Amino acid sequence: MTAFSESADPHRQHERCVTIDLGSRSYPVILSDAWDSGQPQNLLQQHVKDRPVAIVSNDTVWPLYGETLLQAVKKAGPSHCSWHVLPDGENHKTPAQWLAILDHLANNGLTRDGVLLALGGGVVCDMTGFAAASWMRGIPFIQVPTTLLAQVDASVGGKTGINHLAGKNLIGAFHQPVAVLVNTRVLTTLPEREFRSGLAEAVKYGLIQSAPFVDWMLRNRRNLLHREPGVLNQLVQQCCQFKAHIVREDETEQGRRAVLNLGHTFGHAIENLGHYRTLLHGEAVAIGMVMAATLSEHLGLARPGLGKKVAGIMQALGLPSDFSSLPAGIDIEADEYTPEALIQRMRLDKKVSHGRHRLILLKELGQADMVDGVTEADLRTVLQAFCA
Amino acid sequence: MTAFSESADPHRQHERCVTIDLGSRSYPVILSDAWDSGQPQNLLQQHVKDRPVAIVSNDTVWPLYGETLLQAVKKAGPSHCSWHVLPDGENHKTPAQWLAILDHLANNGLTRDGVLLALGGGVVCDMTGFAAASWMRGIPFIQVPTTLLAQVDASVGGKTGINHLAGKNLIGAFHQPVAVLVNTRVLTTLPEREFRSGLAEAVKYGLIQSAPFVDWMLRNRRNLLHREPGVLNQLVQQCCQFKAHIVREDETEQGRRAVLNLGHTFGHAIENLGHYRTLLHGEAVAIGMVMAATLSEHLGLARPGLGKKVAGIMQALGLPSDFSSLPAGIDIEADEYTPEALIQRMRLDKKVSHGRHRLILLKELGQADMVDGVTEADLRTVLQAFCA
Repeated sequence: MTAFSESADPHRQHERCVTIDLGSRSYPVILSDAWDSGQPQNLLQQHVKDRPVAIVSNDTVWPLYGETLLQAVKKAGPSHCSWHVLPDGENHKTPAQWLAILDHLANNGLTRDGVLLALGGGVVCDMTGFAAASWMRGIPFIQVPTTLLAQVDASVGGKTGINHLAGKNLIGAFHQPVAVLVNTRVLTTLPEREFRSGLAEAVKYGLIQSAPFVDWMLRNRRNLLHREPGVLNQLVQQCCQFKAHIVREDETEQGRRAVLNLGHTFGHAIENLGHYRTLLHGEAVAIGMVMAATLSEHLGLARPGLGKKVAGIMQALGLPSDFSSLPAGIDIEADEYTPEALIQRMRLDKKVSHGRHRLILLKELGQADMVDGVTEADLRTVLQAFCA
Repeated sequence: MTAFSESADPHRQHERCVTIDLGSRSYPVILSDAWDSGQPQNLLQQHVKDRPVAIVSNDTVWPLYGETLLQAVKKAGPSHCSWHVLPDGENHKTPAQWLAILDHLANNGLTRDGVLLALGGGVVCDMTGFAAASWMRGIPFIQVPTTLLAQVDASVGGKTGINHLAGKNLIGAFHQPVAVLVNTRVLTTLPEREFRSGLAEAVKYGLIQSAPFVDWMLRNRRNLLHREPGVLNQLVQQCCQFKAHIVREDETEQGRRAVLNLGHTFGHAIENLGHYRTLLHGEAVAIGMVMAATLSEHLGLARPGLGKKVAGIMQALGLPSDFSSLPAGIDIEADEYTPEALIQRMRLDKKVSHGRHRLILLKELGQADMVDGVTEADLRTVLQAFCA
């Protein structure tokens, strides 16, 4: 378990590096404000020089940061550089859009000595990663995450994938990037809901393994919500360290890594019910974590009150804790969000084994555990309190 | 290098096993005449009992052997068993058909504790393997190859994939099966061209690393072409041993494994030109191996005469050696098979590095080498002799 320590001075150094230690597949996560100098530029030169490069982004991020990244990549001396811009949004995380990336690679002659770059949020990072995993049985790729969610979670750890109609990330592969370039300055342009969605994945690390980190987030929530650069850097670095530790122990989720799925089995079902257009991933996971805490209580795994406590944490961070506290302007068809509909979607979760539900639950703040054989009757009881 | 020895008595035992030794990913290739008894049934019980199973096959093989395999699988006690039948043919090795397999898995509730079985030739084995590799980031699968080509090559070694419009197997992953069940009796129903196509992949092992094995095949060519069971079993077992050795040394083709691509860079281009409907894979590879031998000669790597020698071997095994010796009834548009058209398709080969062609060439019978930086001028000169 990685300890959380507040003592790190966020301004001590300009660049910071977290190493994801996976033997021959190890790679650095570099936190830096620039791509065209220092370690990020060194890394680009190392992986890009004299090779064909393709950048994948989306039509929101590319107009903002495409040119800057492109110049940094060109400075590193690739033999050829092209870009492919996806439509923005989780509802475009589809086989069709993944194939469009592969078409781009074919049309630009990208062979095994080529490199892919992902510039965007979790959707772009996951899809580009799966394109890199499956093109010519695997080519290298670099993550350049531009949302808080992607910086604290999606870009690190090698889970890649796309959605199937039946569920989220059902198609995918484990394929580690060769580097992750994190620039928290790009978070200034992130829409408010997207930013808070990222806080949900950040506080998740605290809920599963560090109550002090939850406290730190709550105490600093004003600075966090104002996106104060020093605090943001500290947040992202700490989350990457949490994740680095868990991924090193269990790269392909044979065991402990599964705790990172806290709130995700519920969250994926919620997202699927909204066709990936209604709630953002982090918002769905925030509600999912409250559901998981409430279920933990219901099963006697945690003391009474944990569900309320976790709901309070979400509220403090400006996140929804149930279907009645959704962000302004978000309408859901309440009669579609039934316990039955949610459970039906949970049945295809990747952790379901022999038809029994396997869920990540909480013993208390900072202690998660995988629990096998949760019955649908228990799920139903708990979900009823969340649904209209 | 695996030595070839003729001394093994093909009738000595009913079942034989070749182990593919890859540490925690090791698995057995079982040669046996039955699926519902002995080691094959033991293996099925080990992997299938109390789990959901989906069998993937094609509409030629399923009517012949589907029921037999289904009974053997049911005897092993799965929790649920379904099947998905693809249209037969290399031109159906597409993203759309792969997605149809995934739809089937979603509709039948196959989670990570499920198992896929591939019953068919190289196309079914490769596509099922890629479905298993990419569904929920990887589930186990068992190969049950029913063509000679799949038994001696495609089913062993973990290369999975589908075709992209731009070229063969451009989309895929390395994903090892948990077992391979080889039954050479099913080869009796194989069409003549398909059978000979398999002989091309078999003789390839001899060309790259064992001249005595080429001799053995030539001396036994009558029995081989008559599909005499004892000789067939010996052939398949020996080929699996050759492949096991190479794959153990280099699972993900960082080096030596590339020699298995002898004739394949040319062959894939030939197949692509015919839209995967004209020549069979083994036929294209047979011509490709003659091209590679001729190029080796042209570059001074091999002594004069090697091209003719390899052409003679192909002819003796009933295989084409150029575009004028194609099987009866196969018409190609000769003016489409130009050196330029072939070279253009070779540029997207997975082994192309920094825009230079990397090819497997022969020093002599039984000795292959990877050669970097072959120029397109050299390719053009050699290909001119093969094209109209």
